[in-house]
Amino acid sequence: MNLSMLCDFYEFTMSNGYYKNGFHTKTACFDVFFRSVPDKGGFAISAGLEQVIEYIQSLRYDAEMIAYLRSKGLFDEGFLEYLKSFRFTGDMYAVPEGTPIFPNEPVMTVRAPVIEAQMIETFVLLALNHQSLIATKANRIVRAAQGRAVWEFGSRRAQGAEGAILGARAAYIGGCAGTSCTLSGEKYNIPAAGTMAHSWVQMFNSEYEAFKTYCELYPKQTTLLVDAYSTLKSGVPNAIRAFQEVLLPRGISDCAIRLDSGDISYLSKEARRMLDEAGLHSCKIVASNSLDEFLIKDLLIQNAKVDIFGVGERLITAKSDPAFGCVYKLVAVEDGQRKIIPKIKVSESLSKITTPHYKKLYRLFDNQSGKALADEVCVYDEAIDHTKPHTIFDPAATWKRKTLTDFTAKELLVPVFQGGELVYDPPGIQRIKAYCAEQVALLSDEVKRFENPQTYYVDLSQKLWDIRQRLLAETAGSFL
Amino acid sequence: MNLSMLCDFYEFTMSNGYYKNGFHTKTACFDVFFRSVPDKGGFAISAGLEQVIEYIQSLRYDAEMIAYLRSKGLFDEGFLEYLKSFRFTGDMYAVPEGTPIFPNEPVMTVRAPVIEAQMIETFVLLALNHQSLIATKANRIVRAAQGRAVWEFGSRRAQGAEGAILGARAAYIGGCAGTSCTLSGEKYNIPAAGTMAHSWVQMFNSEYEAFKTYCELYPKQTTLLVDAYSTLKSGVPNAIRAFQEVLLPRGISDCAIRLDSGDISYLSKEARRMLDEAGLHSCKIVASNSLDEFLIKDLLIQNAKVDIFGVGERLITAKSDPAFGCVYKLVAVEDGQRKIIPKIKVSESLSKITTPHYKKLYRLFDNQSGKALADEVCVYDEAIDHTKPHTIFDPAATWKRKTLTDFTAKELLVPVFQGGELVYDPPGIQRIKAYCAEQVALLSDEVKRFENPQTYYVDLSQKLWDIRQRLLAETAGSFL
Repeated sequence: MNLSMLCDFYEFTMSNGYYKNGFHTKTACFDVFFRSVPDKGGFAISAGLEQVIEYIQSLRYDAEMIAYLRSKGLFDEGFLEYLKSFRFTGDMYAVPEGTPIFPNEPVMTVRAPVIEAQMIETFVLLALNHQSLIATKANRIVRAAQGRAVWEFGSRRAQGAEGAILGARAAYIGGCAGTSCTLSGEKYNIPAAGTMAHSWVQMFNSEYEAFKTYCELYPKQTTLLVDAYSTLKSGVPNAIRAFQEVLLPRGISDCAIRLDSGDISYLSKEARRMLDEAGLHSCKIVASNSLDEFLIKDLLIQNAKVDIFGVGERLITAKSDPAFGCVYKLVAVEDGQRKIIPKIKVSESLSKITTPHYKKLYRLFDNQSGKALADEVCVYDEAIDHTKPHTIFDPAATWKRKTLTDFTAKELLVPVFQGGELVYDPPGIQRIKAYCAEQVALLSDEVKRFENPQTYYVDLSQKLWDIRQRLLAETAGSFL
Repeated sequence: MNLSMLCDFYEFTMSNGYYKNGFHTKTACFDVFFRSVPDKGGFAISAGLEQVIEYIQSLRYDAEMIAYLRSKGLFDEGFLEYLKSFRFTGDMYAVPEGTPIFPNEPVMTVRAPVIEAQMIETFVLLALNHQSLIATKANRIVRAAQGRAVWEFGSRRAQGAEGAILGARAAYIGGCAGTSCTLSGEKYNIPAAGTMAHSWVQMFNSEYEAFKTYCELYPKQTTLLVDAYSTLKSGVPNAIRAFQEVLLPRGISDCAIRLDSGDISYLSKEARRMLDEAGLHSCKIVASNSLDEFLIKDLLIQNAKVDIFGVGERLITAKSDPAFGCVYKLVAVEDGQRKIIPKIKVSESLSKITTPHYKKLYRLFDNQSGKALADEVCVYDEAIDHTKPHTIFDPAATWKRKTLTDFTAKELLVPVFQGGELVYDPPGIQRIKAYCAEQVALLSDEVKRFENPQTYYVDLSQKLWDIRQRLLAETAGSFL
């Protein structure tokens, strides 16, 4: 399906208006940022940039789409003609996928003729919001599992096909070991695997026969679902018998059982005991059934004997907080002489006031520990010189100041498109996943806490802070 | 994108096993049902059947897919060969889209050679779960709005492109007036419209100029976003001035303003007063900003002066309960002589015990009031004769009985595929939407309540209840 028309209708009405007002040659700058971390967490994980790139590269309005728009009776023929040859010719900077990101900092900036920048709004937000949501949730769940593998099993509960396919991709970036979604496995080079459904067990005359047959079919990758009748009275004993009769004589001891209902803590401990008593110490226990980071954390506190977690609906829909709130806000326009004029949006809601201007984003790392100390949002023409002492301050509580000496400043927004040309070589999925794990490791434990995490510092440069204050005062003054 | 591979990997491993065991000629029956209504509601709305039909009709495994499967080193060459000519040749019955549905009744039944029935599991569930989730949520929100129009505005927060596109479709079925998603409007013939973003206002030197220009562009469809600076001190006065200067001289009084932040209750009342004082009684007030059925209900209790609601992330992700729980369970197999043998799945969790057998589903309506009284799940070869008194009973509390006399029994599962041929003519979206509204109107107010709704009766026929009891006893007995 061509997704060029996947945009809010107001992008067309506004762009038609820009066109008729001769604004289509005006350049505007937009920021993508979010205001709060899902699940009240300390950070999020950025994902979805690869799909934004694909979208922008394939963005075309064909005759059928234009006929549909014409049928609305709202659009200027000149604008419809303009759409026929529409291409994105602007600049885009973004944080790489897998980067830990924080509220109120630009995770993408777009600088383009205003219609072009406006038309991509909906898809850019949709792609970044969806995958960042799932990558963030997956990262939470994987951290809760403390080194145990977490598999994404949620396709059937996903919100649409892409919810499943790209959700599995994002979950893998966030740290999952793989997915049950075959298409995602094929398309994105993610490990895809599965166990068995209850229907397999029901198709045979007995559970034992079902298990034995499965062991014979897949001796090196056997995971038996043991809860179709009674986990401890039927499932585990039958699994042990099948393993002993089929696998052990072939010298295979790597195998697994899966628990999918009942009290996972109790059942896993009992199953572990039964497996160990049968000498099946290498047999792993997989647990599924509406798990998430909270239940997994709780299971491990209870010393549940689970080696692998299969996580479904609560991961693939980010059930506890299922919408990621990136917004796309105009922050500057250029006058005819390429001078960039910062723009602000004021609001009744304090949190909805924007930070104006075309920007840069730095992450400051402590040279001793290697840990991330703070992010600093600067005006596009500023640069942080880490060879000199550098003072940062809290933009909401400006008396809170800190001078850094032994630090490194890394720019986070990398060029993706310049003059409409792709200048970014997207890393492979394995590299993104590894980068995510590396970067999360550079955050302090306090920021990574689930309950009341420390707020990571996202500061403004003095120059940007001054501009914001001035615009706020001017704008507020204009209608008081 | 070809979605044939959008299935859990275990469908392939199980099907390969069925194939190698000579089970591929065995016929199996699966039910799709769910166990609880999202948001603890009294009923859900079925949606997604049209996408299931499209999927089944286009289901093909091409050379590339088969090469991918071969690379896994798990599959029999005969099975891979079998997949090359794979087609769905079975029967499918389903409730039409827009039907109110209840827990523990079949909303779809599939009867097909077991591999075919197994391979479609993931997509069938994904499609029905996603769209039923959103249609159900939309119906709740629309009912809360008490006749005021509700527009779906959530594309940017949707979980993937289909989350937006098909989510808008499902929201329309559930009762929304339209969507902001242009692609959904084009593809599914849903009203698509929009207002303006803050960027429109920011692109002009003043809010007034932005509003005036918009009124001139779209005099018959003007909705002005009034919260870019200060709703009451700037936005509403500027909107009134633009309406008075541009629209009224042309004899146009139909127009609207949109509130997108702050205290919607207070602001709407103040804005209404200001508009009325300016003689703009026909100007409507649109409200958006993280609304859902609970907030809308509350706004109306507060007498907020809102005419139209725009609902975003809380609808398009069904935020308060974002996963619909349809499952796909084997309920019967056929022996070689086409005799149908019921199958049960027992579980540690009582709610996870299935109701066996190939089934029919009836909805019983009271002839006096026209209201739906109860649903009854029967064995496939039963029929309810509504010319005779008919006794229904609660399957969990069998002493609760009621004899119906003046009633009509309507079969809910309609044939969709027979012998692999599509025998169903899917109604157009307008018809589905109207059918949904008609059928919801036939439910009692008690079932439609948001808080602690009455549990609608979903009963089993005596014959089906007896079979379930017998199988439960037999299965439980076999491992005790």
